[in-house]
Amino acid sequence: VSPKATTAAEKAEILVEALPYIRRFWGQTVVVKYGGNALAAGATGTHPLASFATDVVLMRSVGMRPIVVHGGGPQIGELMARLGKVAEFVDGLRVTDAETLDIARMVLVGKVNRDIVSAINVHGPLAVGVSGEDAGLISAEARDPHLGFVGDVAGVNPDILHSLMAENLIPVVATIGSDGTGQAYNINADTAAGALAAAVDATKLVYLTDVDGIRTDRHDPATRLSTVTTAQLAAMVDSGAVDGGMIPKVRSCIEAVKGGVGSAHVLDGSAPHALLLEIFTHEGVGTMVAQP
Amino acid sequence: VSPKATTAAEKAEILVEALPYIRRFWGQTVVVKYGGNALAAGATGTHPLASFATDVVLMRSVGMRPIVVHGGGPQIGELMARLGKVAEFVDGLRVTDAETLDIARMVLVGKVNRDIVSAINVHGPLAVGVSGEDAGLISAEARDPHLGFVGDVAGVNPDILHSLMAENLIPVVATIGSDGTGQAYNINADTAAGALAAAVDATKLVYLTDVDGIRTDRHDPATRLSTVTTAQLAAMVDSGAVDGGMIPKVRSCIEAVKGGVGSAHVLDGSAPHALLLEIFTHEGVGTMVAQP
Amino acid sequence: VSPKATTAAEKAEILVEALPYIRRFWGQTVVVKYGGNALAAGATGTHPLASFATDVVLMRSVGMRPIVVHGGGPQIGELMARLGKVAEFVDGLRVTDAETLDIARMVLVGKVNRDIVSAINVHGPLAVGVSGEDAGLISAEARDPHLGFVGDVAGVNPDILHSLMAENLIPVVATIGSDGTGQAYNINADTAAGALAAAVDATKLVYLTDVDGIRTDRHDPATRLSTVTTAQLAAMVDSGAVDGGMIPKVRSCIEAVKGGVGSAHVLDGSAPHALLLEIFTHEGVGTMVAQP
Amino acid sequence: VSPKATTAAEKAEILVEALPYIRRFWGQTVVVKYGGNALAAGATGTHPLASFATDVVLMRSVGMRPIVVHGGGPQIGELMARLGKVAEFVDGLRVTDAETLDIARMVLVGKVNRDIVSAINVHGPLAVGVSGEDAGLISAEARDPHLGFVGDVAGVNPDILHSLMAENLIPVVATIGSDGTGQAYNINADTAAGALAAAVDATKLVYLTDVDGIRTDRHDPATRLSTVTTAQLAAMVDSGAVDGGMIPKVRSCIEAVKGGVGSAHVLDGSAPHALLLEIFTHEGVGTMVAQP
Amino acid sequence: VSPKATTAAEKAEILVEALPYIRRFWGQTVVVKYGGNALAAGATGTHPLASFATDVVLMRSVGMRPIVVHGGGPQIGELMARLGKVAEFVDGLRVTDAETLDIARMVLVGKVNRDIVSAINVHGPLAVGVSGEDAGLISAEARDPHLGFVGDVAGVNPDILHSLMAENLIPVVATIGSDGTGQAYNINADTAAGALAAAVDATKLVYLTDVDGIRTDRHDPATRLSTVTTAQLAAMVDSGAVDGGMIPKVRSCIEAVKGGVGSAHVLDGSAPHALLLEIFTHEGVGTMVAQP
Amino acid sequence: VSPKATTAAEKAEILVEALPYIRRFWGQTVVVKYGGNALAAGATGTHPLASFATDVVLMRSVGMRPIVVHGGGPQIGELMARLGKVAEFVDGLRVTDAETLDIARMVLVGKVNRDIVSAINVHGPLAVGVSGEDAGLISAEARDPHLGFVGDVAGVNPDILHSLMAENLIPVVATIGSDGTGQAYNINADTAAGALAAAVDATKLVYLTDVDGIRTDRHDPATRLSTVTTAQLAAMVDSGAVDGGMIPKVRSCIEAVKGGVGSAHVLDGSAPHALLLEIFTHEGVGTMVAQP
Repeated sequence: VSPKATTAAEKAEILVEALPYIRRFWGQTVVVKYGGNALAAGATGTHPLASFATDVVLMRSVGMRPIVVHGGGPQIGELMARLGKVAEFVDGLRVTDAETLDIARMVLVGKVNRDIVSAINVHGPLAVGVSGEDAGLISAEARDPHLGFVGDVAGVNPDILHSLMAENLIPVVATIGSDGTGQAYNINADTAAGALAAAVDATKLVYLTDVDGIRTDRHDPATRLSTVTTAQLAAMVDSGAVDGGMIPKVRSCIEAVKGGVGSAHVLDGSAPHALLLEIFTHEGVGTMVAQP
Repeated sequence: VSPKATTAAEKAEILVEALPYIRRFWGQTVVVKYGGNALAAGATGTHPLASFATDVVLMRSVGMRPIVVHGGGPQIGELMARLGKVAEFVDGLRVTDAETLDIARMVLVGKVNRDIVSAINVHGPLAVGVSGEDAGLISAEARDPHLGFVGDVAGVNPDILHSLMAENLIPVVATIGSDGTGQAYNINADTAAGALAAAVDATKLVYLTDVDGIRTDRHDPATRLSTVTTAQLAAMVDSGAVDGGMIPKVRSCIEAVKGGVGSAHVLDGSAPHALLLEIFTHEGVGTMVAQP
Repeated sequence: VSPKATTAAEKAEILVEALPYIRRFWGQTVVVKYGGNALAAGATGTHPLASFATDVVLMRSVGMRPIVVHGGGPQIGELMARLGKVAEFVDGLRVTDAETLDIARMVLVGKVNRDIVSAINVHGPLAVGVSGEDAGLISAEARDPHLGFVGDVAGVNPDILHSLMAENLIPVVATIGSDGTGQAYNINADTAAGALAAAVDATKLVYLTDVDGIRTDRHDPATRLSTVTTAQLAAMVDSGAVDGGMIPKVRSCIEAVKGGVGSAHVLDGSAPHALLLEIFTHEGVGTMVAQP
Repeated sequence: VSPKATTAAEKAEILVEALPYIRRFWGQTVVVKYGGNALAAGATGTHPLASFATDVVLMRSVGMRPIVVHGGGPQIGELMARLGKVAEFVDGLRVTDAETLDIARMVLVGKVNRDIVSAINVHGPLAVGVSGEDAGLISAEARDPHLGFVGDVAGVNPDILHSLMAENLIPVVATIGSDGTGQAYNINADTAAGALAAAVDATKLVYLTDVDGIRTDRHDPATRLSTVTTAQLAAMVDSGAVDGGMIPKVRSCIEAVKGGVGSAHVLDGSAPHALLLEIFTHEGVGTMVAQP
Repeated sequence: VSPKATTAAEKAEILVEALPYIRRFWGQTVVVKYGGNALAAGATGTHPLASFATDVVLMRSVGMRPIVVHGGGPQIGELMARLGKVAEFVDGLRVTDAETLDIARMVLVGKVNRDIVSAINVHGPLAVGVSGEDAGLISAEARDPHLGFVGDVAGVNPDILHSLMAENLIPVVATIGSDGTGQAYNINADTAAGALAAAVDATKLVYLTDVDGIRTDRHDPATRLSTVTTAQLAAMVDSGAVDGGMIPKVRSCIEAVKGGVGSAHVLDGSAPHALLLEIFTHEGVGTMVAQP
Repeated sequence: VSPKATTAAEKAEILVEALPYIRRFWGQTVVVKYGGNALAAGATGTHPLASFATDVVLMRSVGMRPIVVHGGGPQIGELMARLGKVAEFVDGLRVTDAETLDIARMVLVGKVNRDIVSAINVHGPLAVGVSGEDAGLISAEARDPHLGFVGDVAGVNPDILHSLMAENLIPVVATIGSDGTGQAYNINADTAAGALAAAVDATKLVYLTDVDGIRTDRHDPATRLSTVTTAQLAAMVDSGAVDGGMIPKVRSCIEAVKGGVGSAHVLDGSAPHALLLEIFTHEGVGTMVAQP
């Protein structure tokens, strides 16, 4: 058998595998959380942000409705340092005072969000940056008065997302929320992504992180789980098998799936086209969390 | 590099290659001519009709609008033989008298058409058999009074096809036409496929045949053309480079493309998933005829 | 009073009688079962098929939505005879083996159905032939494994009929059904007509037969009932007053009316314009079966 | 042949004759001018207004859109007499002063219009009385300052008629017009009917009068013309063959047909169901004016 | 502070006050009862009918949907006097015989209604006169056989009002009702206005009268109530605090508000632009009746 | 006359004045340029931003479609100073290098835009922040390579604005543009406001500045022009009568009006409710630029 014949048969096999997924996900909404670390890590040869933007545009091109949610911790820290702003602490917890909030908002809405929108819009006028403050998207409430303007999600009004998706646009969401008086709050992006996914009845919630999924032994890549149920995952949290840094993501996965999202996924955002492979192939490349 | 990693990268590459085609052809109409020979040839291990039906269903599943057109020469001959009907000739040409027409119509509409519809409907209630007589689809006129009820296409009213496609159904067309008095005629299926493709503003017209495309030297597979312009192809007909049996297909390709069809394709219908590979990959597996 | 004045008054009277029926039936669906006998009987001066086609077209012209359902027993028998196919019997019952089914399907879909479509389409591109296999219209199941491919109606998906009627087309249905594997079955046309009428919420189900209605004494035309309730009719079946050959039609009438069809009718299909007179006049010309 | 059989055949014949007209006129607008004389003549056994109302309701029931336009000269004269109002004359022409206009408006809008609406609404809530002043339906201008508030049609805004017909309502129009200052004018109903018919693109304009049509010799009923072209009719007016009292109707017929109305008709409104017979039979009962 | 600066600030204040009302009432329906007395009183310098018409047109211009309902007692009495018609009495109550009804109908539909329509239509083709007989708007029943054709409201079919309002037209309603036989009845306009307001789910029902609202002491203008609940008002009726002539209006106010109308208002129709001030300012100029 | 009576009459007068403007501007788009100076000036008792937000919300509440465009020069300067960033100059012109652009974008999109959105959203979830980069809103090109990322408007795609307005949302636009490669540019906000107004076919373009309009003698408030034509204004620019700082606004006014915008306005943004008074009163409070 010649290499070329092989290729034709292989291509046919992959198409026959992928086409039913494409059919199934047509018109479905997928919330993708893209981390600030991934952005910051863009030093290697292939630019991860550009690769990510390509995947998002391809998903949309076959009828899916991606919503990108992002954080930006490293970038906020950087500007604070440049401005000589020293973090305050109360009872050992970092406080977000008015100035810190202003800095965080400038960085998230005016810098990180813009960079993602730009990367997508190289492919055409497709992305629109949105802050949680816009059109009442994310209603926030203070987590703890001593912590200042750190907020929890009190409610989500997804109308603006639906309007944009109805125009075939890709919303890119910075997770600043606001309360009834117009006061803004900084919201954890992992948590906000889960709340948004539930509010838009997303089919999938995908976390692009710096690990390749959830492992039973966090030090052994061979123990990555391809799929896991919410119950199993909750047990892993209880038993301490889940890494501390993964806990907010893992909790959001569990809550989102319980709240009606079809499945949640944890992938390595730096693997090329991880998003496409996870969505359009049987095997996937990360961990899928689903109802039992 | 492990085989698995290779596969992931390869899969990603094929997806990145195929997704833009899927996007481009969403909502586009493709007329596929499926030959009676292909049907009759179903003796090998993999059933070509079942494979063909799978491809048609997958095309539809990603938003394309396939229309299947078929002939049935061998099957008509078989029933005529069983009924002891001997072909008449006038001036050396075969005559279609009323009884022959009745037999052809029973075989095409009541047998071949039904077999294709059944093969597709294994995947769900997707296909609908249509005769060119239905709702005025194919208006026919006699080619030559001495030949009886052999017809040429005098006009096409594609409303019924549009209605069925608007319901996401797959029309399967038997090429019997009728004139204003209700008289039926047998129409050459290759020619009818071209006329239908032009009438529905098809993006593609695909002939599934028993050769793998158009060759500059018909005896040398290595001379298959991947693409050819209508002008080049017309020159090949004039120079005799095109096989006699290919001439009606080739002429229909040229006319269809000149009539506004985006491109015409000649493929080997017995190659597994030839249809998918031709449509969703850069290289294709047959010959594409396009405007210069 | 001059003859002409009389005629004007009479015409006015008939119009005043008919117009309210026309109003009432506008947009309503009527399933008309046209028998194979009626087709075969076309030897007399006026062609019954042409007269039937005119009536169907006129019904449609005043806003009704006719669906024609047909059988073809005599025509199937004729082709079997020509092919030298001898009927098999199991326990005294005729068996439909694969070859018989193929013959039945060719005759019903490829011949009888075509002839009716052609007769209607003399008036314009109005009729579309449909087999119960198309788009899952009639799901069938085997009646008895020993009888081969004789099927009962297991379900009806009327979407294709609604789509065609929405385009002001007249569906002409051959009663071949299929199961989930794509296997076809021959279905009794009287029974199928009743099931289709119930599935499309028809206002009327009309059997065009070779008798002028239901009689209390089958040998005395004077005992024809103009209207009869389902209860009375069931009693007549029990008492043996109904002719054996009429029993499938009568049972279908009762079931259809119980299943929500407004009324069922038995008419003599050979009487000129029997269909129009039954529908648009007070008195009618056959027997109407209705709820008590 | 028994009388009953004859009747069935005759009925069938009339239905076959009428149904194509019903099809043709579905959704078409017909303006019917009903004269004040006809109303006043309601002393005979069958009440002409009730018969007229039945015809209008039947026309609507088969999808036509009737608009009734009426005058009321005799009824205006009667109230003027009761109020002791003596007609003024200027240069031998009757003058409509403010008081006369008030009387005319009360009688036309508050009496004659109401009586017609009531007669129709016995059949259901179908008719709505409209004055030409409503929603700018008829813009009027003074014919001659010496004649006071006698108006000519300066323009028609048919929106209110289209709105009512879109709700399947039957407008009944009293022909009072108004100018930009809100001043009302009395308009000749024959002329107004023609202008309204042209403005709504009516298919037919029908005058129900006290003669049975247009005759070449006005004293000889046998000379009634079944159809006449606008050119022939204009010649008849020039030659004096048309009766003086008929001239406004005849001129309106000619103008309406030239202005795009399909045909105009003059009928005897006292003949039972004259309207139905003229519209739904080949022969008609009056005179039809059409383009050559 | 200069006078002009004052005016700008004042204007801004009034706009800031009025705009939220305009927003709130956009698309809302308001039934305005305009009394025959107001019409008759048009002898002073500023014409109250013209001022009223301006207010109605302005309400409509900012998106409200006004419906005008009117009476006409004085005008009916005047025509009866001119015709020498003497009122009949039975048991001390005035009887409406057929002739009186005819006169009332001519005056209400053919005179008062027309005058209001004309006054509005000076601003454009906006108003349409409607009688309660049209399209079954007001179904009536006899109040008492001895009183002849005096009717009570038996039902309201508001479809015609909704149709006209959907075209941005202003219905002007004369309160003649009819029963199933087409017999007309004269209906009290205050009562009819309340029934119509409930039937169209009006936001407001406004009575324009000759007093400036409801007073606790009817002789002391200073005791006018700005708002009053239905319960308080019912108590005032019981205690005799409400004037006899006001009782039908007051009862209709109570019933309308209980029937779902947002609020009812009693204003002095002769005060310039009373309607606008009541609707678009905090304070209003009459009495508002609302749910507790 | 009592003070209160006066007030009622005055209120009525102002309502009668304002309502026709409200009618006229229903559904119309108004682009309002809000300057960075106005924002920075928020030190006085009444907060100008809050007053501005109220006006914008009130405009929307009566059906207008406001679009807010803003600059932020002072705020950008402030952050640059804090970051110790010193402006570069080339040939005496300030250069926007990559870092300056980043700062400008953070301030405009992440700070000024957010503050305006928040002030509006105190009234409800109405405003949505938009950058010119979103969905291809503002295509930019470099003004001069030596100046770095200072851009001119190369094109406007207003789809995103129409989508948001169709949902009754208020777009708040930061004037960052981007080119085909995703490179961002800082655009002059006055110029961008004019280009956006022309692109959305705005009825009005309003500049809220720190002067009360255009004066023939810039030092004499009494010489403010209430209206001026584009030709007169162009002459004033040529003659030097227009202040240097006003020239970009004045040029944009002229271009916008020539480009189809109904009128352009220059107002003092610090005067309370200047926006409402200019739009809803005859006299206005600034200068209106219109076609001759």
